[in-house]
Amino acid sequence: MADEAAVRAQAEAVRRLKQDKADPDEIAKEVAKLLEMKAQLGGDEGKHKFVLKTPKGTRDYSPKQMAIRERVFNAIISCFKRHGAEVIDTPVFELKETLMGKYGEDSKLIYDLKDQGGELLSLRYDLTVPFARYLAMNKITNIKRYHIAKVYRRDNPAMTRGRYREFYQCDFDIAGQFDPMIPDAECLKIVHEILSDLQLGDFLIKVNDRRILDGMFAVCSVPDSKFRTICSSVDKLDKMPWEEVRSEMVGEKGLSPEAADHIGEYVQLHGGLDLIERLLQDPKLSQNKLAKEGLGDMKLLFEYLTLFGITGKISFDLSLARGLDYYTGVIFEAVLLQQENDHVEEPVSVGSVAGGGRYDGLVGMFDPKGRNVPCVGVSIGIERIFSILEQRVEASEEKIRTTETQVLVASAQKKLLEERLKLISELWDAGIKAEVLYKKNPKLLNQLQYCEETGIPLVAIVGEQELKDGVVKLRVVATREEVNVRRESLVEEIRMRTSRP
Amino acid sequence: MADEAAVRAQAEAVRRLKQDKADPDEIAKEVAKLLEMKAQLGGDEGKHKFVLKTPKGTRDYSPKQMAIRERVFNAIISCFKRHGAEVIDTPVFELKETLMGKYGEDSKLIYDLKDQGGELLSLRYDLTVPFARYLAMNKITNIKRYHIAKVYRRDNPAMTRGRYREFYQCDFDIAGQFDPMIPDAECLKIVHEILSDLQLGDFLIKVNDRRILDGMFAVCSVPDSKFRTICSSVDKLDKMPWEEVRSEMVGEKGLSPEAADHIGEYVQLHGGLDLIERLLQDPKLSQNKLAKEGLGDMKLLFEYLTLFGITGKISFDLSLARGLDYYTGVIFEAVLLQQENDHVEEPVSVGSVAGGGRYDGLVGMFDPKGRNVPCVGVSIGIERIFSILEQRVEASEEKIRTTETQVLVASAQKKLLEERLKLISELWDAGIKAEVLYKKNPKLLNQLQYCEETGIPLVAIVGEQELKDGVVKLRVVATREEVNVRRESLVEEIRMRTSRP
Repeated sequence: MADEAAVRAQAEAVRRLKQDKADPDEIAKEVAKLLEMKAQLGGDEGKHKFVLKTPKGTRDYSPKQMAIRERVFNAIISCFKRHGAEVIDTPVFELKETLMGKYGEDSKLIYDLKDQGGELLSLRYDLTVPFARYLAMNKITNIKRYHIAKVYRRDNPAMTRGRYREFYQCDFDIAGQFDPMIPDAECLKIVHEILSDLQLGDFLIKVNDRRILDGMFAVCSVPDSKFRTICSSVDKLDKMPWEEVRSEMVGEKGLSPEAADHIGEYVQLHGGLDLIERLLQDPKLSQNKLAKEGLGDMKLLFEYLTLFGITGKISFDLSLARGLDYYTGVIFEAVLLQQENDHVEEPVSVGSVAGGGRYDGLVGMFDPKGRNVPCVGVSIGIERIFSILEQRVEASEEKIRTTETQVLVASAQKKLLEERLKLISELWDAGIKAEVLYKKNPKLLNQLQYCEETGIPLVAIVGEQELKDGVVKLRVVATREEVNVRRESLVEEIRMRTSRP
Repeated sequence: MADEAAVRAQAEAVRRLKQDKADPDEIAKEVAKLLEMKAQLGGDEGKHKFVLKTPKGTRDYSPKQMAIRERVFNAIISCFKRHGAEVIDTPVFELKETLMGKYGEDSKLIYDLKDQGGELLSLRYDLTVPFARYLAMNKITNIKRYHIAKVYRRDNPAMTRGRYREFYQCDFDIAGQFDPMIPDAECLKIVHEILSDLQLGDFLIKVNDRRILDGMFAVCSVPDSKFRTICSSVDKLDKMPWEEVRSEMVGEKGLSPEAADHIGEYVQLHGGLDLIERLLQDPKLSQNKLAKEGLGDMKLLFEYLTLFGITGKISFDLSLARGLDYYTGVIFEAVLLQQENDHVEEPVSVGSVAGGGRYDGLVGMFDPKGRNVPCVGVSIGIERIFSILEQRVEASEEKIRTTETQVLVASAQKKLLEERLKLISELWDAGIKAEVLYKKNPKLLNQLQYCEETGIPLVAIVGEQELKDGVVKLRVVATREEVNVRRESLVEEIRMRTSRP
C-alpha cells in the first residue's frame, strides 16, 4: 500500500510545502496522507495478529465491579449533596487550546484527537479546567457544584495500584467571592466525611499553601525564575528521600547548596496550630508578605477545622507542594496510612486518595477581560479507593448481588411459557422486578438453581392446578417454604416480602 | 516556527522513507513532526482569536439540565433493573481495529485519537461493538446487561433536534442461546415501558427482520452483491419519499426499474399479524427460505407481544431497514408520532427515540475461533427525549430544584459564624443536607432570600438568646412559621419536616 508512487507523491507534496512556506491547511493534508499510509500498514498487520484487549491503561468493569463502584459513588454523591452541591456535566473532549498552558510539565500526558478536519481537540485531563472554562463561558460568578466523570492521562499505568489512563474523578468545587477560608474548610470537611464513611482505615489530610511555599523559596534565596521547578522537586518528597530531592535541586536545577539546605530545614516541618504560630514568629518567614498571608489564612483554616472537630486527621505539612500549575492558595492531599485488611496476601499499595486546593486565577485565563472568579475544590480519586474495596470484597465471604430481581416467574410443567409471559408482564407493569428463563420448557430444578446463583429471593410458580384455582405458588428460595397466594394479591405479597430493596 | 530549516528536514525525512520502503515507525515520526508544526501554527493563531466554546456538536449540562437528565436516567435504569439486568462499563476508546469493519458506510464518522506512539485508538461509536468485544474477551456466553454511556460520531450536528456528536446511549442487551423470540419480545416490552413511563406522547414501534428484507430483495431480483446498498436506500424511506429512493436505486445504484418497482410494492406494506399471515401465503416470498424463517419468527414475536398486551403500538413495517451492518434478524425502531405540547412555539421535531435488533454474528467477529453468541438488544436515544422534556419544563411553570438541601444554618446577629459552623457540622454528621452562607456576617434577609431562590424549605437560626436557652429557631420558609426546637431534637425535627426527599 505504501508503495513507491505514494512516497513519490509525498515527496512532491513536501516540495510544494517548501515553496509555499508551510501553509497549515497544506500540512494538514499531508499529515492525513501519511496517517492513512500508517493506518493501512497497521491494519494489514492487525489481520494477522488481532489482539482482543482494551487499550493500554484501561479496563472494563464487570457487573460485580460495577456493584462495588456504585456503592462508592453513592457514598460520595450523598456527601456532595449533603453539602448542597448542584451537578454539571461537560464534554469528554475540549478544544486543545482550552487545555494548553494549564498543567505545567504534565501537559505532555494529554491525549489529543486525530486531526480529521475541523477543530483540534483533546481529551480532558481533569475536571477543574473544564469547570473554569464553563464558568467563564457562562459568566457564572457563584456556584457550588460536583462533577463525576472520567479523565484521561497518557501516564505510565500501574493498574494493580489503581493507576489507570482512563479513570474517574469526583470533584466538588466552590466558586465565588467569599470570606476567607470558609469554603476551604468545607472542602476539607468533605474529604474527612467521605474517607470516614468509606471505612478505608486510618488516613491523614496534609495541608499547605502555595503562598507559604513561595515565601519559603524567597527567604531561602531561590531565584524567582526557579520557583516552579523547585516546587516540582519538593512535590517528589512523598516518593523520594530528601537526599535525592536535594541533589535534583542542586545538580539538575542549579540551586545553590545553601538554598537547598535551607529549604531542607523547612520541608521537614509538620504539625498543627502550634507550628503555624511558630512560623508566624519565624524571623525570616514572618517578614515575607506572601508567607505571612498564607500563614494567617492557615491559622484561620485551623480554627474552622477545630469547630468541625477534624483537626485530629489534619497535618500542616511544609513538604506538600502538588504538581499542577494553577493552584494559588491552600493545597491539600489525603493519604491512607495503612492497609486495614493486612491479612490479604498482596496488599494494594495506595498513596493519595484525594487532593485539591485553591485556584483563584484559572477562570480569569478564560475570561476575555481576565475577570477572575476565586475557586477552591477537592477531587476524590475513586480508582485507588475502588482497588482497596474490591480486594476487601474478594478476601471476605460477602456475596455481592449484581441484580435487584425480586422474583423469578417459573413453572414446574411443560407448555406454560405463555402463562409465564402473561404473569411476568403483569408483574413488570406493577413495578415488580421479575425475570423468566428464556426457554419454552425449562426444568424446575434449573429455575431454582438460577435463583440460588443470582440471589433472587422468591419464585412465583404457575401450574395447571394453580391456574384453575386462581392462585400462584410463591416459594421462598432461602427457606424452601411454599405458599399459595391469590393472583390478585401476588404483587402486594411480593412487595411485602422484599420490602428491603 | 514552520521555517525553511524545518521543511528541509521534512524533505530529507521523506527521501529516507523512499529508500526504506516506508517503515511505519518512520512514518509515525514524520507525522509527529508535521503535526507539531501544525499545532504550533494553530497555537499562534489561537492566541489572537481564542474562542470560548465547547467543541462542535457538544454541550455542557447545567445543573437544571442535569436535574431533568437524571429523571430520564432514573426512569430508564428502573426499567432495566425491573427486567433483571446487570450493569457493565467499558473504556470510552477502543483499539481502532476493534471498531473497523462493523459500521458499514458510517465508519467514516468514527473519531480517531492522535497517534502519540503506542496503540491506534478510536472513540466508541456505539455500545454494541464494545459489548461484543467484552463478551468475546471474557468468554461470556450468557448475560443480560445494561450500559449507559456517551458515544461519539463525527456527524453533522443538529443540536436543536437533539442530534449531537457526543451523546448518551442507554443500551439493554440479552446475549445467549435461547428459545426463539422470547428475549426479542422482552426488548420491545422494555421500549414500550420506557416510552409510556416518560409520557412523551403517542409513539409507534416499527418492527422488521433482516431476513425478510434479504428474502424480499431476492424475490425482487436484486443481485446478491447489491443487497447491502439497496438496504441502505430503503433505510432512507423515513426521510425521503419513495420516488427519490427509487431513483437512487435505479440511477445511482444501477438497479433495474422492474426490481425497484417490485421492492416499491413491498415496502409500502405495514400491519400486524394479518400482514404476516398474508405474506406467509405470498407465492414468491413464501418460497424464499430466509423470508419464510423471518416471517415465521415474526409471527411468534407477535404472539408474545400479544401476551404482553402491547401490539397496539407495534407495526410490522417492511420499509424499516436500519443502517448498521451487524443486524442479522429482528430489527426495530421507535418513533414519536406527534408533539404532545403543541402550544410550544417552536416544537422540537424528533424522530427515532429508540432502536435495536438481533446481531447473532458480531461476537464471532471477535472470538479467535469465530464462536458466536446470539445477541439482541435495544438502545434508547436519550438526547432527543431530553430535548422534548427540557422544552416541556421551559414551557411549564414547574420550578426544578437543583439541590436537595433541607436546611440553611443562619443567624440574625453578627459574630456568630463560629456558632453557625459548629451547628452545621453537627447536622452534616447526622446526615442532614445543610448549607451555610460563606460570609462572616450575612444579613438575615439575604439568608432568607437564598432559601427562596434555591428552594431550601427550612432555616435553622442561631442567636445569642437561643444559644443561652439551648434551642434553635426553626423557620419554615414557605409559611414563615417559626418554632423554637431544643438543640438535641433538631435533627429529628428536620428529618420529620422534610421526610419526602
